[in-house]
Amino acid sequence: MASRTATRLVHPAVGELEFTTVLTALSDPVRLAIVARLAEVEPDGELACTTFALPVSKSTQSGHFRSLREAGVIHQRDEGTRRLNRLRRADLDARFPGLLDLVIPQGREIVASWA
Amino acid sequence: MASRTATRLVHPAVGELEFTTVLTALSDPVRLAIVARLAEVEPDGELACTTFALPVSKSTQSGHFRSLREAGVIHQRDEGTRRLNRLRRADLDARFPGLLDLVIPQGREIVASWA
Repeated sequence: MASRTATRLVHPAVGELEFTTVLTALSDPVRLAIVARLAEVEPDGELACTTFALPVSKSTQSGHFRSLREAGVIHQRDEGTRRLNRLRRADLDARFPGLLDLVIPQGREIVASWA
Repeated sequence: MASRTATRLVHPAVGELEFTTVLTALSDPVRLAIVARLAEVEPDGELACTTFALPVSKSTQSGHFRSLREAGVIHQRDEGTRRLNRLRRADLDARFPGLLDLVIPQGREIVASWA
């Protein structure tokens, strides 16, 4: 049973996605890395925030996930104590065809540069 | 003869272009509109800053052109009292294939929404 005190996670509808807002969300190496990692578990795969090995503090990481959710790039939901993330591939492809295919390889390069 | 007091305009080399920096530069409606307008005069067309009918003040406009230049999206040069702008299509296509083709239609939509 879901906790009654869980934060309500707000997501823009597909028709509300704004190109410049999405670009802003993607204009960061950590956020591009998150997108690239989520792209590996498409189409319906979800990854908990804790499974991302990102070179930033936990609170900074949370801010990056929130930016991506508020821009409409990812969907988040809480399950018990975990927050699960999923790439909004279908919505993004519908509104901005080709954008994800262009940015995902850039995200992979960033992840590779950290290894 | 060029003025000796002209500002030196700095441009990143093609190898120095950073994907996230370019995305940041493109994450703004006015800057996307500038890119779309410059795309109309490709490949070698240059447009003076004063020829862009943008819904922002002159100083704000100058800041947008500077952001685009510093990110490597446009090339600027001074000719007399005019500052001329050119899209760095070849450099951007070489580094980030498909990016300009994806953003230019978005810039056109923004320009159309202002009309």
